[in-house]
Amino acid sequence: MNVLVINAGSSSLKYQLFNMDNETILAKGLCERIGMENMVGHIKHTPLSTGKEPFVADIDLPSHAEAIAAVIEKLTDSEYGVIGSLSEIGAVGHRVLHGGQKFTASVLVDEQVKKAIEDCIPLGPLHNPANLMGINACEKVMPGVPQVAVFDTAFHQTMPKSSYLYAVPYKYYEEYSVRRYGFHGTSHRYVSARTIEALGVPAEGTKVITCHLGNGSSIAAVKDGKCFDTSMGLTPLEGLPMGTRCGSIDPAVVEFIANTEGISTSETLTMLNKKSGVLAVSGVSSDFRDINAAADNGNERAQLALDMFEYGILKYIGAYTAAMGGVDAITFTAGVGENDPDMRKRIMEKLAYMGVTVDEEANRQRGKFALISGPDSKIKVFVIPTDEELVIARDTLEIASK
Amino acid sequence: MNVLVINAGSSSLKYQLFNMDNETILAKGLCERIGMENMVGHIKHTPLSTGKEPFVADIDLPSHAEAIAAVIEKLTDSEYGVIGSLSEIGAVGHRVLHGGQKFTASVLVDEQVKKAIEDCIPLGPLHNPANLMGINACEKVMPGVPQVAVFDTAFHQTMPKSSYLYAVPYKYYEEYSVRRYGFHGTSHRYVSARTIEALGVPAEGTKVITCHLGNGSSIAAVKDGKCFDTSMGLTPLEGLPMGTRCGSIDPAVVEFIANTEGISTSETLTMLNKKSGVLAVSGVSSDFRDINAAADNGNERAQLALDMFEYGILKYIGAYTAAMGGVDAITFTAGVGENDPDMRKRIMEKLAYMGVTVDEEANRQRGKFALISGPDSKIKVFVIPTDEELVIARDTLEIASK
Repeated sequence: MNVLVINAGSSSLKYQLFNMDNETILAKGLCERIGMENMVGHIKHTPLSTGKEPFVADIDLPSHAEAIAAVIEKLTDSEYGVIGSLSEIGAVGHRVLHGGQKFTASVLVDEQVKKAIEDCIPLGPLHNPANLMGINACEKVMPGVPQVAVFDTAFHQTMPKSSYLYAVPYKYYEEYSVRRYGFHGTSHRYVSARTIEALGVPAEGTKVITCHLGNGSSIAAVKDGKCFDTSMGLTPLEGLPMGTRCGSIDPAVVEFIANTEGISTSETLTMLNKKSGVLAVSGVSSDFRDINAAADNGNERAQLALDMFEYGILKYIGAYTAAMGGVDAITFTAGVGENDPDMRKRIMEKLAYMGVTVDEEANRQRGKFALISGPDSKIKVFVIPTDEELVIARDTLEIASK
Repeated sequence: MNVLVINAGSSSLKYQLFNMDNETILAKGLCERIGMENMVGHIKHTPLSTGKEPFVADIDLPSHAEAIAAVIEKLTDSEYGVIGSLSEIGAVGHRVLHGGQKFTASVLVDEQVKKAIEDCIPLGPLHNPANLMGINACEKVMPGVPQVAVFDTAFHQTMPKSSYLYAVPYKYYEEYSVRRYGFHGTSHRYVSARTIEALGVPAEGTKVITCHLGNGSSIAAVKDGKCFDTSMGLTPLEGLPMGTRCGSIDPAVVEFIANTEGISTSETLTMLNKKSGVLAVSGVSSDFRDINAAADNGNERAQLALDMFEYGILKYIGAYTAAMGGVDAITFTAGVGENDPDMRKRIMEKLAYMGVTVDEEANRQRGKFALISGPDSKIKVFVIPTDEELVIARDTLEIASK
């Protein structure tokens, strides 16, 4: 079966078409500037199975429905297409940001599911409406094709209450569902499962820490194969300092900055989401490659941004080791986690106190599965490339086949 | 020399008079409802050296100056007094909440110091003005007597930048001094020094975690005898869930609650400071004795509040162990830390993974110095009663004697 994976943002739509018989990607692409006034839309479509050059063009994209139509057109195009007709798409999998407390796993989309995703809009005000637009657009363009929703929050729904509750008035939890949810769940689920597989033991009894480090970063404590705690919270703002997000700060900082600058709470939160993190500390970039380069050239604030990021990771690894009463394996994944051997090495050297050693040779690997701790290391450390689209495609295949 | 220790709040003033020749307390007391409209003030004065009953009365206390005058009157009173005259007070030590980045140790108060405390009012808007009122009142009533300021933040000024900086735009740090400061510094300093003393080794090379657990709670990582990191931040709101404070939360929760409830950022922060914490989770009380009793009677939310508090402590111990690359000793102090053996035991049992064992007999102690880890424990665990007033008196004696 071919499965189309959709990741819809407010004005963008990413897609990958999988042939699930051999888990290969037939084509992938990106629509941008969807529904933006006075701006023409844009599509980049890359056929992979045919080896053709990408198709790139400005086209009218007044809504997500037109974007999906354009995607289908390109997928079935005589020149740039990779399938003969729409009927060759067996199912569509949608990445959905926020499933609230309602979804603990991926589900077949029906009216109730759509209503539930809508109910979670207050928790994911930017992403959930876009995700719904993506689903509605597919229903319109591909009536009858099964749609599956895969939630960023679902894997974390096994956390115990002492991990997910905030110490704020209880009514905010009961009435407004204020609690820690956690994100990157599809990645933490995939990577922790592969880690346990690599350990070669049953999930029961395992203690794994997964470090998803990219432009957005989160860490998860995975006990017995299930999420026990994670660093992101009600929103993806909490936890580590990220590309442009501040991560955990004194909540009083929100009021202090709002009052000092004379700006609203919403404006303050936008600044904490979009103009903070390692971008703000380094003053250089939100991209770790740029920050690394600047630090190598002696830029002190770039070095400080790296130090803060790594110190945050170190503290979470320590905290989650204590939370689970030990740790068997630590896994690095995502853009930075897979591709920054120097950062991994510095963190691992600081974990020497818990018996971690580094296999320098293996750690030089980028973007490939590797056991990077030494043979004498008390804790195994892995690099495991994440693949959220593949997990979405697998979930979609499984659910659509039932 | 006799030293008067003053802890001035916005409408209250606590005091202790020490005879520093033998470090005994001659008298102590509390003035309340200072400067409150339509309410008469109140004083409770307890002479300790004479063994007399406390003096308790409603009296006019229109300002802190009248409160200090009333304290002096009682200290020198023919019936309730403990000294003959004002001249027997050699120096006054003031607890000051926020010293910003200006004070790394206690100092003799002069006009410049008062100006600097005033400059820190934006960082400690409730406490610093009251602390200044206490200083001004003493200068007025006891002209010529040396005044010493002892800051809650001073001990934490040795933190490295990667511990104290938030990942927010750098100008907030440069222009408005937004950063982690930490509080309970006098307690962490005293208790960490006593821990190192108990270890019987030089401070250099030691790694100590001090857990100040009371109605307000904070944890500090103390490396080489100096603060390396601490859980409270710009304000005392960050870190562990406390009696009525929420501790660390997703900063986005501030906006979510403000918007959902239709209240201002300031009102939201007041709620997070005064109506959150274990009070909010348990729905019972901010006092851990009440919460313990309720939990023993099967109250699930009381149990949840205890679980969250202990889980927070556990995560900080793990995080700070990683931050310092190991830990030699963990010390419990303050109201809850000194007097709740069951809580200590539960936390220590969860630290078994790092080789901590419990001396059940020793751990039954309350409010006394005790080594409560077993003889085979890889990490020593202590209970060390804190004494912030004594530290203030010692600092005051030392500085006033110069």
